[in-house]
Amino acid sequence: MMIVMRTNATQREIKNVIDRVQTYGAQAHLSSGEERTVIGVVGDVRAMPRDEFIRMDGVDRVIPISRPYKLTSREFHPWNTEVRLDGVVFGGPQVVVIAGPCSVEDRAQLLETAHAVREAGAHALRGGAFKPRTSPYTFQGLGEEGLELLAEARAETGLAVVTEAMSPEQVPLVARYADMIQIGARNMQNYALLNAVGASQHPALLKRGLSATVEELLMAAEYILSHGNNNVVLCERGIRTFETATRNTTDINAIPVLKSLTHLPVILDPSHSTGHWEYVEAIARAGIAAGADGLIVEVHAHPEEALSDGGQSLKPERFAALVRQVAAIADAVGRSLAPAKAAVSG
Amino acid sequence: MMIVMRTNATQREIKNVIDRVQTYGAQAHLSSGEERTVIGVVGDVRAMPRDEFIRMDGVDRVIPISRPYKLTSREFHPWNTEVRLDGVVFGGPQVVVIAGPCSVEDRAQLLETAHAVREAGAHALRGGAFKPRTSPYTFQGLGEEGLELLAEARAETGLAVVTEAMSPEQVPLVARYADMIQIGARNMQNYALLNAVGASQHPALLKRGLSATVEELLMAAEYILSHGNNNVVLCERGIRTFETATRNTTDINAIPVLKSLTHLPVILDPSHSTGHWEYVEAIARAGIAAGADGLIVEVHAHPEEALSDGGQSLKPERFAALVRQVAAIADAVGRSLAPAKAAVSG
Amino acid sequence: MMIVMRTNATQREIKNVIDRVQTYGAQAHLSSGEERTVIGVVGDVRAMPRDEFIRMDGVDRVIPISRPYKLTSREFHPWNTEVRLDGVVFGGPQVVVIAGPCSVEDRAQLLETAHAVREAGAHALRGGAFKPRTSPYTFQGLGEEGLELLAEARAETGLAVVTEAMSPEQVPLVARYADMIQIGARNMQNYALLNAVGASQHPALLKRGLSATVEELLMAAEYILSHGNNNVVLCERGIRTFETATRNTTDINAIPVLKSLTHLPVILDPSHSTGHWEYVEAIARAGIAAGADGLIVEVHAHPEEALSDGGQSLKPERFAALVRQVAAIADAVGRSLAPAKAAVSG
Amino acid sequence: MMIVMRTNATQREIKNVIDRVQTYGAQAHLSSGEERTVIGVVGDVRAMPRDEFIRMDGVDRVIPISRPYKLTSREFHPWNTEVRLDGVVFGGPQVVVIAGPCSVEDRAQLLETAHAVREAGAHALRGGAFKPRTSPYTFQGLGEEGLELLAEARAETGLAVVTEAMSPEQVPLVARYADMIQIGARNMQNYALLNAVGASQHPALLKRGLSATVEELLMAAEYILSHGNNNVVLCERGIRTFETATRNTTDINAIPVLKSLTHLPVILDPSHSTGHWEYVEAIARAGIAAGADGLIVEVHAHPEEALSDGGQSLKPERFAALVRQVAAIADAVGRSLAPAKAAVSG
Repeated sequence: MMIVMRTNATQREIKNVIDRVQTYGAQAHLSSGEERTVIGVVGDVRAMPRDEFIRMDGVDRVIPISRPYKLTSREFHPWNTEVRLDGVVFGGPQVVVIAGPCSVEDRAQLLETAHAVREAGAHALRGGAFKPRTSPYTFQGLGEEGLELLAEARAETGLAVVTEAMSPEQVPLVARYADMIQIGARNMQNYALLNAVGASQHPALLKRGLSATVEELLMAAEYILSHGNNNVVLCERGIRTFETATRNTTDINAIPVLKSLTHLPVILDPSHSTGHWEYVEAIARAGIAAGADGLIVEVHAHPEEALSDGGQSLKPERFAALVRQVAAIADAVGRSLAPAKAAVSG
Repeated sequence: MMIVMRTNATQREIKNVIDRVQTYGAQAHLSSGEERTVIGVVGDVRAMPRDEFIRMDGVDRVIPISRPYKLTSREFHPWNTEVRLDGVVFGGPQVVVIAGPCSVEDRAQLLETAHAVREAGAHALRGGAFKPRTSPYTFQGLGEEGLELLAEARAETGLAVVTEAMSPEQVPLVARYADMIQIGARNMQNYALLNAVGASQHPALLKRGLSATVEELLMAAEYILSHGNNNVVLCERGIRTFETATRNTTDINAIPVLKSLTHLPVILDPSHSTGHWEYVEAIARAGIAAGADGLIVEVHAHPEEALSDGGQSLKPERFAALVRQVAAIADAVGRSLAPAKAAVSG
Repeated sequence: MMIVMRTNATQREIKNVIDRVQTYGAQAHLSSGEERTVIGVVGDVRAMPRDEFIRMDGVDRVIPISRPYKLTSREFHPWNTEVRLDGVVFGGPQVVVIAGPCSVEDRAQLLETAHAVREAGAHALRGGAFKPRTSPYTFQGLGEEGLELLAEARAETGLAVVTEAMSPEQVPLVARYADMIQIGARNMQNYALLNAVGASQHPALLKRGLSATVEELLMAAEYILSHGNNNVVLCERGIRTFETATRNTTDINAIPVLKSLTHLPVILDPSHSTGHWEYVEAIARAGIAAGADGLIVEVHAHPEEALSDGGQSLKPERFAALVRQVAAIADAVGRSLAPAKAAVSG
Repeated sequence: MMIVMRTNATQREIKNVIDRVQTYGAQAHLSSGEERTVIGVVGDVRAMPRDEFIRMDGVDRVIPISRPYKLTSREFHPWNTEVRLDGVVFGGPQVVVIAGPCSVEDRAQLLETAHAVREAGAHALRGGAFKPRTSPYTFQGLGEEGLELLAEARAETGLAVVTEAMSPEQVPLVARYADMIQIGARNMQNYALLNAVGASQHPALLKRGLSATVEELLMAAEYILSHGNNNVVLCERGIRTFETATRNTTDINAIPVLKSLTHLPVILDPSHSTGHWEYVEAIARAGIAAGADGLIVEVHAHPEEALSDGGQSLKPERFAALVRQVAAIADAVGRSLAPAKAAVSG
């Protein structure tokens, strides 16, 4: 922590800050320049409320030096974490693809889509049973019935299942049916939910909030890891900016930034990060080219009939083309696509 | 809903769209210009998934015409809603001030601050018992003990109590102690929480998410109102932008925009919307000048010792100055400050 | 300047940084914490390229401590600068209002509007002769003919004239006709233009770019002041954010922030910062309440016929109401509206 | 153009709008729903000021339907435009790379870097002679001397030269030395400059403003094309958002969006769009994977000594690695890297 004094700070004000630092058992290192003095604080800074120093007379700014996250940081854990999910590995040399509909709508729709994405090369199935919707007047999901349908789709296709929990009390239920619990973008800072998922020790897919910084995403992951649950995959899904040509702005920079700051696997959701199916393939390729460990893609057998997000869902044949393109990009960056799941024999 | 066709759309594509519109029992009105055709859809648009039309061949864009919220809209409810709270009225001719610490930290701190804000002219007391914190390593609130302290402060001062619930299961507990349940910015789209607060019929303070649009804020309020609970006060508390000189950017425009779009009361939180105590007075004045129905301000008897948000908290004497300034501005815009709460006689 | 080393930086890497600092004749002050070392650099930092240190092995970040602007800074010039304009003073105790049409369109329109705003209490007349327009197909301004009409309006009404120059070669021409040269938001970082206006020694109105930070605005002003021209008034005119309910987002926080960082006068443009005439009055009041030294407002005698910005222009009678409200707010904050210009006797 | 009436608009107000539409010789098509009436306007909308209708009584909103750009639109020019530059083709099947230092600093630096990037496979040389700098106290470029050095580098290496003009009067000078005139991000809406470059008929590289929408970028290009100059290459170089982990946010979505909206070539500048050399390779790969026609990359033989942007410049050996990676990605998307320039025989 660096305490920057005002240019007109008095010697007495400087001394008061030093004294206060020392009451915490920390040391104060002075750098006195022509314009101003900067006081470096050495010691256990986490116990010192930064606001306390901001409020002292003569203080201009307080600059944190340590990063606020520890367990998620690559500085203290340099090697990659691999998150394993029923034969699927996130964060290893191979690239993984999760695919499926935005919402679980009915049995026929889900099974048709599940079979189609498995045949196209997907490794896991996504589909929402509990849906966070902007409007109270739109489809809110099938709830537990949706979870049962997902379990049936897993039994039929062998695909691992990824689905969202929206509140702490849903966590045990979702954990019973799903291989991986998704925490949606709107809930990235729902701390009660983060704690519940952390305590469950279940693999988690943590989506970045649409206006969360990279640092805030890592702090949200820190909540889960603080329960001893390291099975966390991070997901860039687009941020909110002034640009309206697409639903969100894919923060492609976040892929290499996250890979350098944390040991956790990082995937991209090109469906939400663009909001238009026409752009999903291009951005999926870009994600893998930038170093993402995988993708999560919305696919619907009949997107024009989807109850949610039809505009950004791929039809199965376009998804199959996407998987082929992603495999080519993975090869070009010295990785490969994880092998397709074998059909479940009847 | 307007369906804009591509410039090169064929007659057959146009006909397909019209047919689809009619299957919903709606009517299609054509405007064929030199460049392109636009199809106006008249009928119960809420039953028609917009995405369905976006996916049809020849369609360029689909533009919604109706606003997605109804119960919160001033179009269908032109007169102001007043939310009443133990003698305090939000949304009437008088301006109301809520004040208190960010967190309830201990009995002495809370009572000292509560008495100070009452004497300065505040009408209600704020203070968090459950705290959403970015870092798992910082103070997370006193929980129910904090609620008990708030109840004690109310008994001593006569101030109504406003405090936050962070998850659906906390709602009954918080409702037992608080006059008004706050839904924090991070939880603005926590739909399980919105539904629980709606069902409770308890007065609610709904804070705008830091990257939520005005329309999304109104949609979140719609969740609460859809339970028949109209006791909702909206709160602008700053949005996230590129500017880093302040913690957030006060969207002062949102005050007159919300007052024109909705009948619900609107207040401003100048503490969070600036993040620096030096700017709180100026922005509090601006809020009332722009038409806000009240303020919620962080005040701490000893901000340099606060466990959270000390940098943006006012000391009681500065808060007293703020109240005097706000009263002058209220007069200048033809309103007045609500009368101060009388001291509770011992 | 603070050089933050990586947690795993070697002693050799730290020594290399210290040696490099010393080659500039500066001193390096070490703070070695448990996790990492921070090197404070004391000396003439402006001669040291920050990028040089960022590139050195073992360096994590370089944090500037000094503010990059000097002449505009209140730290080195604590008292307010007053900019004087033919009897109108910006930055003094009184509040000043500039008003007029977006563009000068024709003689009748301009004179009618000029007389109307003078009668309503405006102190200066705005109006564009050279217009920056997003589309090449829209009205681009009358050019020098517009300047002549502005001069005529000044002669008739006694109002000072504020109008925009868009390129360095227009500066002498505009300076001949105008009392104050406006640098528009799109040109805030047009350095050739800033230098030309600086060299002209003419009073300047510098509008904040729609995505410029407060610091960048002050750096742009620094270009003008570096020519010895201190006659600069800063103008907040809204920034670009994700919110689309208004054309721009008024950064009301910028008013007190600028007033604390710089000695230059600061005014607000509520017409551009909202983009809707219905919201202009509320935001004008908010600006003065927040401490602005004045306003610049778009007024058009017949806004429904305006060639540009009709949607945000006030009619004269609404402008007159605005001036009365602003006067009341100015009184409430201990200032007053500057006295109206007397009619020019014929 | 669609004119949306308020829910409570009267028949008389609707009639007034229709009458006004007809005074322009256009037709009004009514869609009257349960809640409100929408009036579609058919005819030459470009002659009708949209603001005029916004101001009419009973009008809620006016929604434009036609895109405001024509010459740049793929709707009216479906095939790709190729921009040719001394043997280098932008917008064809092959991918092109421009590389070089941020600024031309001196002869030795420029020639060393130019030879290095040619050997690594670059097709054109970038380097600024006129530099837009945030601070008046930093290096502002060598001016014409820099242009002469660029010409010398071209003669020595055979690389085409791309360099920036900052004001209209610099255009003839820059055109004399450069194969392509760059219009920088800060000048994207400097209309005098756009007009001068358009009139020059010289090939232009138009960089997106850091807060410009895709539509505004296309409108800026429209200024150049309106002079009959179609030799325009568009460049995404990062936008300004709330995220501070990188200098800007690469709007990777803009690549496929632009490729679908316009026939002009589109390239990416991963140096400015990230601001950190460590991320440049990943984002360069992403750009080509997303469909960009080329890249412009900052390379400096000795970035730790650069007078500007050293922190984001690649060393020649890293640039060579980047070119190899980009070639692999180009192959993976069915394109190829343009062949390297042969050495100029001495």
